[in-house]
Amino acid sequence: MSTVKVGLIGLGTVGSGVVRILQEHHDDFVRDQGVDIQLVAAASREPEQAEELGISDIFSTDGADVVNNPEVDIVIELVGGNTFAREFVLNALEAGKSVVTANKAMLAADGRNILRLAAAKGAEIAFEASVGGGIPIIGPLRHTLAGNRILSVVGIVNGTTNYMLSRMHDDGLDYDVALKEAQAAGFAEADPTADVEGHDAAAKIAILSTIAYNTDVKLEDVYCEGISKLSPLDLEHADEMGYAIKLLAIGNRTDSGIDLRVHPTMIPKTHPLASVNGVMNAIYVVGDAVGETMFYGAGAGSGPAASSVVGDLIEVARHLAYREQITQSVWDTEELPIRSISELECSYYLRLPVADKPGVLATTAHVFADYGVSIYSLVQRGSSSGNVELIYVTHPAREASIQQALAAMQATDALTAAPVLIRVQN
Amino acid sequence: MSTVKVGLIGLGTVGSGVVRILQEHHDDFVRDQGVDIQLVAAASREPEQAEELGISDIFSTDGADVVNNPEVDIVIELVGGNTFAREFVLNALEAGKSVVTANKAMLAADGRNILRLAAAKGAEIAFEASVGGGIPIIGPLRHTLAGNRILSVVGIVNGTTNYMLSRMHDDGLDYDVALKEAQAAGFAEADPTADVEGHDAAAKIAILSTIAYNTDVKLEDVYCEGISKLSPLDLEHADEMGYAIKLLAIGNRTDSGIDLRVHPTMIPKTHPLASVNGVMNAIYVVGDAVGETMFYGAGAGSGPAASSVVGDLIEVARHLAYREQITQSVWDTEELPIRSISELECSYYLRLPVADKPGVLATTAHVFADYGVSIYSLVQRGSSSGNVELIYVTHPAREASIQQALAAMQATDALTAAPVLIRVQN
Repeated sequence: MSTVKVGLIGLGTVGSGVVRILQEHHDDFVRDQGVDIQLVAAASREPEQAEELGISDIFSTDGADVVNNPEVDIVIELVGGNTFAREFVLNALEAGKSVVTANKAMLAADGRNILRLAAAKGAEIAFEASVGGGIPIIGPLRHTLAGNRILSVVGIVNGTTNYMLSRMHDDGLDYDVALKEAQAAGFAEADPTADVEGHDAAAKIAILSTIAYNTDVKLEDVYCEGISKLSPLDLEHADEMGYAIKLLAIGNRTDSGIDLRVHPTMIPKTHPLASVNGVMNAIYVVGDAVGETMFYGAGAGSGPAASSVVGDLIEVARHLAYREQITQSVWDTEELPIRSISELECSYYLRLPVADKPGVLATTAHVFADYGVSIYSLVQRGSSSGNVELIYVTHPAREASIQQALAAMQATDALTAAPVLIRVQN
Repeated sequence: MSTVKVGLIGLGTVGSGVVRILQEHHDDFVRDQGVDIQLVAAASREPEQAEELGISDIFSTDGADVVNNPEVDIVIELVGGNTFAREFVLNALEAGKSVVTANKAMLAADGRNILRLAAAKGAEIAFEASVGGGIPIIGPLRHTLAGNRILSVVGIVNGTTNYMLSRMHDDGLDYDVALKEAQAAGFAEADPTADVEGHDAAAKIAILSTIAYNTDVKLEDVYCEGISKLSPLDLEHADEMGYAIKLLAIGNRTDSGIDLRVHPTMIPKTHPLASVNGVMNAIYVVGDAVGETMFYGAGAGSGPAASSVVGDLIEVARHLAYREQITQSVWDTEELPIRSISELECSYYLRLPVADKPGVLATTAHVFADYGVSIYSLVQRGSSSGNVELIYVTHPAREASIQQALAAMQATDALTAAPVLIRVQN
């Protein structure tokens, strides 16, 4: 039986979950996996956490003690963020130690270079928990689906916004009310910006695209729009048209580069992602051989994230235990370009608040015609404010044309407020 | 760059798909995975298949030539069945060659012993394609979810029956008509027994349970009922009650052993499996840490199955290429018992065709009371034949009690035909 010694930095929700799994399932892992995993060092800022878990004897308040402990073969980094955590990870890899991490911010900022460093040092870095909580997705992309040319990765990867959209849809809640409710339920932070503006989802699609397309993708490459402009009206209209509205994180392979974006999207109710509700996450992957697949589960929480961390840990431990030479996880990249959102071509749902006076409908229709945007359907609705709303759905059009048309429309006096735009995926 | 040499036995639908992927993506695998995979030997009964693929130069009509070829490092077995194919696989493993296979029949009959042989010989056997076509499920169960104690595996793993049930539900087709249509569409064989009677699904849940529970499970351990007794009426009633009817392959961990069964099951429409329609497959897994997850995709077809075979091939090739000592995939088993179906406790939908005469309702109600079966709801419907149908839904009851009650009821003259029983999963 081979023994592998592990150090853990970060004893918060996920870290505590990891310690508990290692305590409860130690013997199962010996029997089923042939590795005796021993936690020999742990660090966090709060000694009480170690006390609660009964691991005060191996505890330090300095993460560097874990990294520098000569006994430690594998470092689990669960601090998060791209400052201290990054230093721990880089120092561990430099020392040839393998790393298991859930650190989305670090990987989205600079994942490819960290993978390169690990490969150069003969170490492994595993990060299943960085995307989709407990959902196996990095593993399948790197291994089971490796025979495919991946064509598309589309995810509902933020539980907070998916919960809010579900509540807005099911109970007609306004955005502000849904947000307050999500905060009260513990699904949203006091400052919800990272979730509701799509930054969290953007970091995750950057990581997924880096793996799926074996190329360099960074957070700043991702076009990003959140859900804060949506009203329950939009969800109602979508529903009537046979669509659900989801905050999708999208990474498509196209002839002109990787099409990378996060924004509210209308998808047909028959799409597998359409019935993913509440805080659940799902990632939909299309490969040239496998066709469409979807991976569904809890995107956050102590248990799910700890499940992914321990899955990675066992894998890395088995590699070490059996003296396997580490296989470089990435050999060379395709260096694919990132496509601009302006090249996107799809249908658009456009809700235009307009003044209730003659000629307005003609003005808007004219502007669309001027920019070559062809209309699929139009509905006019009165609104309580005395204003009128025009709900246009376009035929497939270029994003650039739509944006130009909207800009032109805002230069007229037809609009009484900013238009709402939702891209439609068929 | 490390070269790995591969031999392939079986050039049918899946085998041809594998050859095409290796031809088209050879350079991608060199770049992304660091392995130069060379197909150096191939066999099938039909030389024309090799000609079409342009591989006549490495072709033989005898699979043994592939196994015995000293150049071949990895044997891909895509012959299927438990006779010739088994011999090829055992001989390859005995010779220390690793094997990639899609052979469900062989693994369901005797999977654990084949895994043991591979481990003893320092070889690997990989079989992602044996269950769920292109859906990554064996990989996630063995690796990403390895930190979990798996509690439940429930799959829609037979596309033929799922297609037929979808058609019976959506368009009210009778079973016979749905079957003929599935045969015409190429989704069902001329002899559909293995699909419609649940044997195919039973083999797949035997394999999944072997891996998920690390124990010995064989095909004959699986309780099995097919869909041939169902009528569109049952699907209609289920629909009205908020349920879908699916042929589920179920493997649950229980205190009294593994609960293993295949039968038509009513599941709430809100369950993730309920919206898996047509020929698509999905496998729903519950782990103690991860909670609920689901894996969705095409369960059959050249591309999907070939995707899984090539994913396995790349993984095994990387292990060989980098001279990793093969990690034994299974170390020891839990030797869990298999629970009898009679210990099952759930709600039951029971459709009883009865004579339209006084006292019949009382008789049936009496029998249920005698066996301690408590009733949740009852509907009486006239049927076109002049007979009447009683639709009972029970509170949770033991399978043994239900079966005894039905037997007792058949001993009375109340029933005019055999009752239809569907287990309800909430």
